[in-house]
Amino acid sequence: MEDKIPRSKEDDYSNEMAKKRQVFMEEKSGVKIQHINQYSFDPAITKGNIEHFTGVAQVPIGIAGPLLINGEHAKGEFYVPLATSEGTLVASYNRGMKIIQASGGVTVTISDDAMQRAPVFIFNNARESRDFCIWINENFERIKKVAESTTRVGKLRDIEKYHSNKFVFLRFNFTTGDAAGQNMTTKATFVVSEWIMKKYDPGVKYSYILDGNIATDKKASRINMLHTRGKRVTAEIVIPDPVIREHLRQSPFRLMHGMNISSVGAFMTGSQSNANHTANGITALFIATGQDVANVAESSAAIMFTERTKEGDLYYSITIPSLIVATFGGGTGLATQKECLELLGCHGKGKVNKFAEIVAATAMAGEISLMSAIGAKEWASSHDAMGRNR
Amino acid sequence: MEDKIPRSKEDDYSNEMAKKRQVFMEEKSGVKIQHINQYSFDPAITKGNIEHFTGVAQVPIGIAGPLLINGEHAKGEFYVPLATSEGTLVASYNRGMKIIQASGGVTVTISDDAMQRAPVFIFNNARESRDFCIWINENFERIKKVAESTTRVGKLRDIEKYHSNKFVFLRFNFTTGDAAGQNMTTKATFVVSEWIMKKYDPGVKYSYILDGNIATDKKASRINMLHTRGKRVTAEIVIPDPVIREHLRQSPFRLMHGMNISSVGAFMTGSQSNANHTANGITALFIATGQDVANVAESSAAIMFTERTKEGDLYYSITIPSLIVATFGGGTGLATQKECLELLGCHGKGKVNKFAEIVAATAMAGEISLMSAIGAKEWASSHDAMGRNR
Amino acid sequence: MEDKIPRSKEDDYSNEMAKKRQVFMEEKSGVKIQHINQYSFDPAITKGNIEHFTGVAQVPIGIAGPLLINGEHAKGEFYVPLATSEGTLVASYNRGMKIIQASGGVTVTISDDAMQRAPVFIFNNARESRDFCIWINENFERIKKVAESTTRVGKLRDIEKYHSNKFVFLRFNFTTGDAAGQNMTTKATFVVSEWIMKKYDPGVKYSYILDGNIATDKKASRINMLHTRGKRVTAEIVIPDPVIREHLRQSPFRLMHGMNISSVGAFMTGSQSNANHTANGITALFIATGQDVANVAESSAAIMFTERTKEGDLYYSITIPSLIVATFGGGTGLATQKECLELLGCHGKGKVNKFAEIVAATAMAGEISLMSAIGAKEWASSHDAMGRNR
Amino acid sequence: MEDKIPRSKEDDYSNEMAKKRQVFMEEKSGVKIQHINQYSFDPAITKGNIEHFTGVAQVPIGIAGPLLINGEHAKGEFYVPLATSEGTLVASYNRGMKIIQASGGVTVTISDDAMQRAPVFIFNNARESRDFCIWINENFERIKKVAESTTRVGKLRDIEKYHSNKFVFLRFNFTTGDAAGQNMTTKATFVVSEWIMKKYDPGVKYSYILDGNIATDKKASRINMLHTRGKRVTAEIVIPDPVIREHLRQSPFRLMHGMNISSVGAFMTGSQSNANHTANGITALFIATGQDVANVAESSAAIMFTERTKEGDLYYSITIPSLIVATFGGGTGLATQKECLELLGCHGKGKVNKFAEIVAATAMAGEISLMSAIGAKEWASSHDAMGRNR
Repeated sequence: MEDKIPRSKEDDYSNEMAKKRQVFMEEKSGVKIQHINQYSFDPAITKGNIEHFTGVAQVPIGIAGPLLINGEHAKGEFYVPLATSEGTLVASYNRGMKIIQASGGVTVTISDDAMQRAPVFIFNNARESRDFCIWINENFERIKKVAESTTRVGKLRDIEKYHSNKFVFLRFNFTTGDAAGQNMTTKATFVVSEWIMKKYDPGVKYSYILDGNIATDKKASRINMLHTRGKRVTAEIVIPDPVIREHLRQSPFRLMHGMNISSVGAFMTGSQSNANHTANGITALFIATGQDVANVAESSAAIMFTERTKEGDLYYSITIPSLIVATFGGGTGLATQKECLELLGCHGKGKVNKFAEIVAATAMAGEISLMSAIGAKEWASSHDAMGRNR
Repeated sequence: MEDKIPRSKEDDYSNEMAKKRQVFMEEKSGVKIQHINQYSFDPAITKGNIEHFTGVAQVPIGIAGPLLINGEHAKGEFYVPLATSEGTLVASYNRGMKIIQASGGVTVTISDDAMQRAPVFIFNNARESRDFCIWINENFERIKKVAESTTRVGKLRDIEKYHSNKFVFLRFNFTTGDAAGQNMTTKATFVVSEWIMKKYDPGVKYSYILDGNIATDKKASRINMLHTRGKRVTAEIVIPDPVIREHLRQSPFRLMHGMNISSVGAFMTGSQSNANHTANGITALFIATGQDVANVAESSAAIMFTERTKEGDLYYSITIPSLIVATFGGGTGLATQKECLELLGCHGKGKVNKFAEIVAATAMAGEISLMSAIGAKEWASSHDAMGRNR
Repeated sequence: MEDKIPRSKEDDYSNEMAKKRQVFMEEKSGVKIQHINQYSFDPAITKGNIEHFTGVAQVPIGIAGPLLINGEHAKGEFYVPLATSEGTLVASYNRGMKIIQASGGVTVTISDDAMQRAPVFIFNNARESRDFCIWINENFERIKKVAESTTRVGKLRDIEKYHSNKFVFLRFNFTTGDAAGQNMTTKATFVVSEWIMKKYDPGVKYSYILDGNIATDKKASRINMLHTRGKRVTAEIVIPDPVIREHLRQSPFRLMHGMNISSVGAFMTGSQSNANHTANGITALFIATGQDVANVAESSAAIMFTERTKEGDLYYSITIPSLIVATFGGGTGLATQKECLELLGCHGKGKVNKFAEIVAATAMAGEISLMSAIGAKEWASSHDAMGRNR
Repeated sequence: MEDKIPRSKEDDYSNEMAKKRQVFMEEKSGVKIQHINQYSFDPAITKGNIEHFTGVAQVPIGIAGPLLINGEHAKGEFYVPLATSEGTLVASYNRGMKIIQASGGVTVTISDDAMQRAPVFIFNNARESRDFCIWINENFERIKKVAESTTRVGKLRDIEKYHSNKFVFLRFNFTTGDAAGQNMTTKATFVVSEWIMKKYDPGVKYSYILDGNIATDKKASRINMLHTRGKRVTAEIVIPDPVIREHLRQSPFRLMHGMNISSVGAFMTGSQSNANHTANGITALFIATGQDVANVAESSAAIMFTERTKEGDLYYSITIPSLIVATFGGGTGLATQKECLELLGCHGKGKVNKFAEIVAATAMAGEISLMSAIGAKEWASSHDAMGRNR
């Protein structure tokens, strides 16, 4: 038996090639494939999204809503498709949305927007490094021009400069329209870096590396928490005291108190988030809508703050500082993914801010729901009823 | 038009109910659903995995391999199904696997295994907190018995105790067999906590909260990096100098040097990982195999170390300290998900360690592939060719 | 002129040798020494504390108090000598102590106590590393015996084991009586490590390093925050509403609110402390009493929590998780240092817990004082009046 | 007996008042004061540096050197006064300086310089917060003018803006000449903040707090590591292979290897530094020269990088990202403190960069010395010989 995965140099994105690979896998494993080969689209559309296309993972979608959002881009009620296999997740988010509804909606605000690639330039010593930083400052306009020549959409906003030892880490901040923009940012940064290598007169003595772990792509970090990666989105709500008592069977004071204690835990452990479980809803929405799901690593970080208002209600807010989303490009054009974006009125250009607001509002729904469950006794038992505890 | 999502109290997991919700969504959005309604299984199987089942996200699967693994549980060649919509991902991992093959395989080792739930007990002051810690120590065997009475599989290994202010955070460490175990851990911890509330004579004066953000569920943290959440898995390889020069067009010295610089970036930024992009492969494999994908937040953390060997080859290793995986329970029994696990010979009981090793080995393939691309000039251009750069 | 600092092989700790070095420095610098040569003790007492003894830094001492402490070891009123050159520091701490007095005192509790040295053992791979951990577990009693054979005071409490890559970091936890214990811990760990190298049958293939940066000596870290280095001390107070309004001209709610916001800042920035400025008082007390002042790096970390009580008063607490102090050994026997310890009734054996409580209570005084100043408008102006603003 | 510390409203900085307080302390404690009352200066000079002046801590000073520095401000050989009570410290630094001498000196570079105060402005919600950031950007020149009106020396360089939840944390970056500048920065920021409260038309609805823990004064943090607090100073050296083998009895490869492993420890533990013990030398030099010693908390953070050069020698470097030093103001004018600065040729205006370079070079000496000891077997034994191990 061949060891090499079947591949066609002419057209690898056909049902025929997918079938060949299915057969290959069946022969290798002795397993009869009956499900991953069930897809509803022409494999040709996956070009640019996958290699060795063989079939699909069918991830169950549940609907939660209505989710009442007072955004600047997303306004009104939304029904959110969540793709997950975790029992109780949809129910929990749905319940949070009910509380949001009863509270008059969740307010969402985007306060920053940038995508990065961060090469590191290597010098002989710290002085050369420092001088290079100065040169970068002085040549920003030229660099911007070179960077933007590589893309119709991306704009180079600014360049953060971090010096240590004999290195200069440059964090190129781009705005990237409705795409998540990692690829266009990579390309633009690559072209700029090559240009710098040629133009920098004193010379980059050693070399450069296209990524020096300072944009922390697919990694949560304090730099992304401070300086934004993707969108910086804040969801806020004031939950009236009666709503809390009825729906969460707690008092605003106890909830605030609990979240403050939970913040101590997050601080002490060096956690990337002091919120509850934003990753759950964000992941489910990412899978449903064709986002780059690996970005959950950084997109799930959140800064939570809560307080009891003068009126005795509960203010609750999360800032998601590195939410990476797209409504155009990447996986957003695939069959079910595009459909889910359309269900939210978020497919295509001009929709990314609306979508970012929906994601943050959804995350909020989960926070509210779990906030209560953590304190009350129902958490374990709800998993018992709906999930598969043994 | 109704605002309420259609739901059946008798049987919500039927094609009929799914259809009703599809129609509901169509009416709400004006979008004609043609794809998410295309699934190949009886919705009844999703009970326990989703609520408001409405259809599926079809996430493209590509195959990468053969991946040669020298594990203690996974031995030999594997073809890995990766579910993603990110162009070049499969190609990149496939290429890393070729280099692994040329290097004689990747060695994988599981060194620890624990799942946690971490309630916080609230006292009047620090002294009561301290005394409570002593009592917990003295009553470990009783606590263990109570905890284990709630589960056939889970075993309470030990309890970490963290005191701050007037709080005691208890981190209950369970082993959970082939399930990821978050739910069984939650339930056992809940029962134990209630038991403690009753049995602790001096009394827990205030209350307790079932999770105090110190197990950092779905959040990367230093505590999980230090103390393991899920499996602690290490993948190691020695890539011979000639392989590096042929496949990666670099020298071992330059690669090591580059990764060391990259570690400076990770350290300075407070990143959860000093590796390259473990999140990519782990996420794709998680989606394909029905894992709880939101765990990518913590499961993608990695500790990377590289060195040039005396022989001039490159030793490269990553420890993934909080890899949460299952081959039983959760989403592992769903149609395509089960199939993908079966293709890897990893479905069902007794397979979780094998699967964990495959995940870590896959992550390694991506590390190797990107390690090269970061330094060389091909990264941007490969995305150009295969992805959708604009 | 000689370049070599004068040194006597017979007796370097004499007035004569000190004088020779003073002259040497005068010749080198052209500066006439008039002050550092003014010391009130026989240089012979500095043996074991300094090399090349040349004179003294005279650091001004101010007294703050009375500080009312409800400790388990320190009980009653204390007058605290603070050595500093920072204007307003003593005044600020003194003011905090007044508020403590008006509130009935500060309660202090020691909840943990351990000093570490943490060697790293280097293996060929992860499996050897894992197996070594098991062996360490199995041989704990033998290791304990070897370790304790090197010291009359130190006791090996337990060994934390951290595996990553091909390394095993062992964190040896000792109790060390009234000494800070870094040196005895180092020595014991060295002897144990050598013993392990000989006794571990499979062999530590490569080598070991006596410190692998996992005890984080003189560095703040999350591991020390979680696992204690030195004493883990908590200071707590309930400041009655009327006291706050009179002395701090604020409301309990505003103070709590301010500290909660300040915690967001600490969390977002990856700070080692979410308190205000514990370093100030701890440093001043460390200098006065002959502590190893470099430990301020880790001893100043603090976990702050505040809440408004049901009665409307303010509960404020700090846990100092890695407070390294001694009342015996090190610099505690020097002339002024011993005197300051005696003024506190803390010199010599059996006093270290009392002293630790005084340090934490002092830190609390500064927290309370600055808490108010941060919010109010007086901070800048008090520095104006007392310090040297330009 | 009186409980109140004696104080004179007319002139509290006299020998008479110091004596009264000594007597007070003697009566309170029953201890006869013989040493802290031995100071060589007129207490009047301590005005602005201390309150309740009662005497001095006499901290032993040892001299280490010559330290050969290739700085841009510090050039040539220096003899460094180190005030400490930790046995072996001076000897260890002295030994490091010998190795530096044998290697041709340590190169030091200052690459950034800023002092901060960081108020937080509190709004009703995230949108108001975001809009405020825009206003700050638009009004920078006016803000700068207001800020600089309060100081002859300080210049407002820029303002970092961090939004989370309903807060805007502003980090005001000042250059402050030869003073450390914390007080002038506080004052300027206070005046600016008051001005903003008046001028911001939409209104800061709630309030502001003068420090929101985002300048992390006296706390190590990732933000200070990234964005500099005080001076950002890098010390670099290439130690030739023969020097390493003779003085450190190791090979460059082993030392590099050891430091890389040590970096893994620092990364995993969330440490503020991946270097060895920069705090030791920095603290001793801070005490000797009248620096604000509490700043050791942040000034001891370091980013270490090492590599073997093509020639087989060892490149070793540390970047100290938040070194806070002064040669004017604060404690630098006190008797012994001024003398020590003078011995280094660093007292008064125009000397702060020179002094910063000396501090970093001194820190390097300690790194080199301990680097060897950590690996070799001599560490424990040197403490045994010189310190007071029991």
